[in-house]
Amino acid sequence: MSTETEFSTIGKRVTKPDARDKATGRALYATDLVVPRMLYGKILRSKQIHAKIKNIDTSRAQRLPGVICVITAEDTPKIAYGFGKDNLPLKFGKVRSLMDEVAAVAARTPEIAAEALELIEVEYEPLREVTDPFEALKEDAPLIHEQRADNLSMVFDYVHGNIDQGLDESDHLVEGRFDVQFIAHSCLGPCASIAEWQTDGTLLMKTPTQVPFLYQRDMADVLGIAGSQVCVEQPYIGGGFGSKLDLYPYEVIAALLAKKAARPVKIEYDRQEEFLYSPVRSPMVMDVKTGCTKDGQLTVRVADIWSDNGAYNSWGAVTPLVSMQTASALYRVPHVHFYCRIIYTNNPYGGAMRGFGNPELTFAIEQQIEELAEICGMDPLEFRLLNANQPGETNLAGMKITTCGLSDCLNKSAEEVDYKKRMTEVGSDRGVGIASAIHVGGGARIYPSDGCGVIVRINDFGKVSIISGSTEIGQGSDTILTQIVAEELGVPVDWINVVNTDTDVRPWDVGVHASRTTFIAGNAALKAAREVKEKILETAAEILKEKPGKLTIKNGEIISIENPEKKLPLGKAIRSKHFRQGGSVISGEYYYDPPTVHQDKEWRGNISATYGFGAHAVDVEVDRETGKIKVHKVAAAHDVGRVINPVGAEGQVHGGVAMGLGYALTEQIQLDSGRMLNPNFTDYKIPTTMDIPEVVPIFVETNDPEGPFGAKGMGEITMVPTAAAIANAVYNATGVRIKSLPITPEKVLNALKAKEQK
Amino acid sequence: MSTETEFSTIGKRVTKPDARDKATGRALYATDLVVPRMLYGKILRSKQIHAKIKNIDTSRAQRLPGVICVITAEDTPKIAYGFGKDNLPLKFGKVRSLMDEVAAVAARTPEIAAEALELIEVEYEPLREVTDPFEALKEDAPLIHEQRADNLSMVFDYVHGNIDQGLDESDHLVEGRFDVQFIAHSCLGPCASIAEWQTDGTLLMKTPTQVPFLYQRDMADVLGIAGSQVCVEQPYIGGGFGSKLDLYPYEVIAALLAKKAARPVKIEYDRQEEFLYSPVRSPMVMDVKTGCTKDGQLTVRVADIWSDNGAYNSWGAVTPLVSMQTASALYRVPHVHFYCRIIYTNNPYGGAMRGFGNPELTFAIEQQIEELAEICGMDPLEFRLLNANQPGETNLAGMKITTCGLSDCLNKSAEEVDYKKRMTEVGSDRGVGIASAIHVGGGARIYPSDGCGVIVRINDFGKVSIISGSTEIGQGSDTILTQIVAEELGVPVDWINVVNTDTDVRPWDVGVHASRTTFIAGNAALKAAREVKEKILETAAEILKEKPGKLTIKNGEIISIENPEKKLPLGKAIRSKHFRQGGSVISGEYYYDPPTVHQDKEWRGNISATYGFGAHAVDVEVDRETGKIKVHKVAAAHDVGRVINPVGAEGQVHGGVAMGLGYALTEQIQLDSGRMLNPNFTDYKIPTTMDIPEVVPIFVETNDPEGPFGAKGMGEITMVPTAAAIANAVYNATGVRIKSLPITPEKVLNALKAKEQK
Repeated sequence: MSTETEFSTIGKRVTKPDARDKATGRALYATDLVVPRMLYGKILRSKQIHAKIKNIDTSRAQRLPGVICVITAEDTPKIAYGFGKDNLPLKFGKVRSLMDEVAAVAARTPEIAAEALELIEVEYEPLREVTDPFEALKEDAPLIHEQRADNLSMVFDYVHGNIDQGLDESDHLVEGRFDVQFIAHSCLGPCASIAEWQTDGTLLMKTPTQVPFLYQRDMADVLGIAGSQVCVEQPYIGGGFGSKLDLYPYEVIAALLAKKAARPVKIEYDRQEEFLYSPVRSPMVMDVKTGCTKDGQLTVRVADIWSDNGAYNSWGAVTPLVSMQTASALYRVPHVHFYCRIIYTNNPYGGAMRGFGNPELTFAIEQQIEELAEICGMDPLEFRLLNANQPGETNLAGMKITTCGLSDCLNKSAEEVDYKKRMTEVGSDRGVGIASAIHVGGGARIYPSDGCGVIVRINDFGKVSIISGSTEIGQGSDTILTQIVAEELGVPVDWINVVNTDTDVRPWDVGVHASRTTFIAGNAALKAAREVKEKILETAAEILKEKPGKLTIKNGEIISIENPEKKLPLGKAIRSKHFRQGGSVISGEYYYDPPTVHQDKEWRGNISATYGFGAHAVDVEVDRETGKIKVHKVAAAHDVGRVINPVGAEGQVHGGVAMGLGYALTEQIQLDSGRMLNPNFTDYKIPTTMDIPEVVPIFVETNDPEGPFGAKGMGEITMVPTAAAIANAVYNATGVRIKSLPITPEKVLNALKAKEQK
Repeated sequence: MSTETEFSTIGKRVTKPDARDKATGRALYATDLVVPRMLYGKILRSKQIHAKIKNIDTSRAQRLPGVICVITAEDTPKIAYGFGKDNLPLKFGKVRSLMDEVAAVAARTPEIAAEALELIEVEYEPLREVTDPFEALKEDAPLIHEQRADNLSMVFDYVHGNIDQGLDESDHLVEGRFDVQFIAHSCLGPCASIAEWQTDGTLLMKTPTQVPFLYQRDMADVLGIAGSQVCVEQPYIGGGFGSKLDLYPYEVIAALLAKKAARPVKIEYDRQEEFLYSPVRSPMVMDVKTGCTKDGQLTVRVADIWSDNGAYNSWGAVTPLVSMQTASALYRVPHVHFYCRIIYTNNPYGGAMRGFGNPELTFAIEQQIEELAEICGMDPLEFRLLNANQPGETNLAGMKITTCGLSDCLNKSAEEVDYKKRMTEVGSDRGVGIASAIHVGGGARIYPSDGCGVIVRINDFGKVSIISGSTEIGQGSDTILTQIVAEELGVPVDWINVVNTDTDVRPWDVGVHASRTTFIAGNAALKAAREVKEKILETAAEILKEKPGKLTIKNGEIISIENPEKKLPLGKAIRSKHFRQGGSVISGEYYYDPPTVHQDKEWRGNISATYGFGAHAVDVEVDRETGKIKVHKVAAAHDVGRVINPVGAEGQVHGGVAMGLGYALTEQIQLDSGRMLNPNFTDYKIPTTMDIPEVVPIFVETNDPEGPFGAKGMGEITMVPTAAAIANAVYNATGVRIKSLPITPEKVLNALKAKEQK
């Protein structure tokens, strides 16, 4: 961090303002909240994976003392929602998965509500089920949604360049089938919401959404009320990772129960419910083909993908939006064909998850890179450097790469595991692997606005309030905004308070997705702070008799740049502006919307104002007896533009690597006829502290010209290349290439056995 | 209301947005609030009216199970506060009244806290007490504050004009002694605060203060912390009337207990505590002299006042600030001498109360007006009209009277009780009386800023949020701001939400005092809304291809003024501005500080941007057997500039008249050696619905040029002339003039008896 000394706050190890409250248990999450007259809601789920609902009898439940109301779809406006309008808060006519909501109860206690669920009698007529996406595409497959001709929910299909030409130009071609599994977000904070109708007809939702402003609209639509009638308040949020990017039926049900009961209703999930009823990361089967010239120049890439969408379209259905970018943008490749089927099944439906389609396809691409390098007889690192994205280029997907530290990331992470030397020793049980990643780092224009508003206020005492549309979900965005404003205003970070209030007060923001908060909200905060600074300096200039341009603020003092002995405490200038006839208080507001465009019909366009790059190099050991993989080290190098906060940036790397590790090795939702068999942390294995290897975060600072103080987003990319790098290292250690996630001991042993038998 | 038809919202009977919550019990007042881990605080008061504290033993209290901590002054920074820095949150060395706080306890339940108080042993050494202000001024009087030479806390003394000249020019002169009593505010919502220290060292006070931003500073000062460390959140407030204009020891004690316990602490008063320990309206003895020429022109006024301040200086000590304005500004009088002594005694100390020194002196002045009229042989109404304030004049106090409807108020209220005719029938047991009032109506520059900030935001759905520094204490300010913004933006009132959040979010405001909110916050709201409107019209102009100046907004639609068929829904324009590349959200902020000045050393200066006027005419009946006064009718005419909301304006009149009625006839804190004998609504008699006569509100609309839509403030003036008018009516009914409040049956009977004996 060469420029660190220029800054007072940027690049410093600032503690998260919410750390103390979270560490001491004072922070109130949605699960902790209690409001006066609150009832407890519980939801009856389908006992059938696919069935017609013949009848629902709620009469016994309604008579249970302590039950305030029971609702079914008949009590709702039956407005479909979600991408494709295929989901309903409460189902009627039929159920399509074991997640399906059939009825709900509001009662005085959670125990009474649970007892009442047992008393609801639902008569089903079972239908043939289909849980395999390939089966679901067959002509005689049962239809998940009868009104549709088949189970193909969506298709994403494009060609960038000319595939025939690409194939013609290829001296070498590798192809293979890769598959990735169902996984769970495993947020520490499970789903919990309180719905309360105000006397003015406004629905106040206290809920841990990542997207409060989209939520307003979605909730209003599904309830058939005006967007102005929904107010969203976010308590502390215990992690999101994309799982809180949707409006979920349970939230709508809470609102419906609260309406009927005319009292606030809370619905919260326990850990098992969180596993069973939160959306998952969808599994994909990917047939991928990559070609190159004999000197290692990539020529063509073809990805043909089957995605198991589950029964309804949520964000899982549009996950290929990012896979497509990976296909066309990871390395320079002139010809790309992408084809992906989103297939309805009776499985749990997929949502958004960190990386959003990127780790999936990167897992395939990065293994084929190594396969091609091997065929070409090239060092895979050199092969990658030859094809690496470079600053200044506009790629196939129309992305304008302004800053790009990919080559540096590759070199630095490789060096950390002695890659060049150790790469040559294939099959020694200990191996190294590497993989690259690209991801949006400057927002992602999915909506008509990709903006975020920030208000900065400074009071008579110099205390600064940041009121932002952005959402702190544990990722540290409040810390980033604090540092950016502190740096720009020249005040200590502890003068700053980030106010997390409701949608009536906060300016609009798309929400937490696409690694956009540091970049987008950061830019808005920077510019709002600049407005405040200008107003302060204008007043100070009057007092100090200097031109505003000749003044700056350092550590809460206004100083003349040329005559540093001329100074003034910040508060004095503020009060001077305020406490005079016709005076005023000081605030600034900025709505930052990046200079980006929507992708066109061919999925081209500069969707993000900048892009992040990274490379993970890993050192693994494989036990040939047990097939068990021990990861010794992950060197994770990331081009983050500029590190605003090393603690936060390292935290993102540690978290991303841990999540990538679980994806690579242990995590998998085990389904049997659509029923999750392992809905708990004993059987669903996220890496524990005991499993985490040495993680070496390496930051490549490219000082992005559009980023706030040069920063890019980095929330997602840190988990993108891990699984691929581990697979490559397993190959380096054993000579076997595992193309299926998770890389279980069983898969390794089977592959080793198969190799021996060859 | 001649201009009513021009407006869509101004002048309409709009329901208060909080009415439903308050009526249904949903509104959460400070007493209703519970926060996690909260303890209950209780305060041990002095058992002695005036004594040295020899020793405090808290050890038994500390050992009581359930007690978390006990504090005395020794646990505090001992920083004095209040006007004159004569008060302490917890007393040490000595106690000066029965309100004095000696120790405090935080415990798990209120019952344990109360029990613990009983276990605290305080050893006192009694001192000689003084509860009569005249006694307190004697040379041998015990000193309330030893460090002072005497018990004279403050003196307010000025001459406007030349008294000798005034006396010389007087053909007639009346003089007399008037006295007014101790009264209580009797807010429905008693004092209650929750103090909680945040992990970042910020003290969050949930408290029903009328002055959140002054409170920040005062609380910080008394705790010895920075102003930036205090955040104030106001729950619903159950009335203020000036009683919540101060920081009170109980609030500081809650903060001190919370600090020591490291847990939130709530202190709340029951009704008896509210009576005993809230500040009161101070009693005054007023020797007043008024002169006039033989044709009824006022020549001179001399007021010589003794005010019983109680033991400490709160707002009661500076109440003459407004009495002085009454002295120099009620009617045109060329020569005025004002002299007022603020005298320490061992009585409860006085705070601010509606009218703030104005009803007190008006009670004297308005009786002398009638006395002079009688001497001159003039109809008292004509006498008043002759001397009435007039638009365009600058009076002795430097007040610039822009608009003035006093003559209209006098004529219209008089007409309502058939004054002219009935005035001539003195002594018929039924009588009429009238009295005038002047009060600030456009703020009052007491502080370096008399400003208020308002932020107006409008979201994609057209919902408008008003975030204001001003405080809703039940007076209806949120409704007024709603109507002003609705009118300016051309949207229905139910599109608007007033957000009452904390001092970190809200822009600064002096607070609720001096009847300033409609005028000051109203102007800020109007100008913030205007900014929003301009931004909307600018966008609409692009779409409709019209100049912004040719567009207006009506009922949520943007309309071309010249081609009304050209129109656009408001939300569409907002979304068009928002959902585009480089778009933005729409908000406006304005900090309005009126064009007023501080009074100079001679207490002259245009302290308010405009002034309100009023006259109450009453019809009373006196029972000569019992001395009981029955008020049949109060016609209350007020120049309010423009009525923003008739419901609210009428409510202010009804409330002011009721309070004036209690002041006139029944309310009195009965003290025996500083101990209140009637701390309950059985013995402290506020008028009940059964006691309220017919009240006829009459509004004189002068359309003030500086007021928002022409409005002036009217919160206080509605109680100012009532008591004086009743006293005048009693004279008219009986021929006896009662110069002492309350006008009890006993006083009437005694006066009648004395008259008979003459």
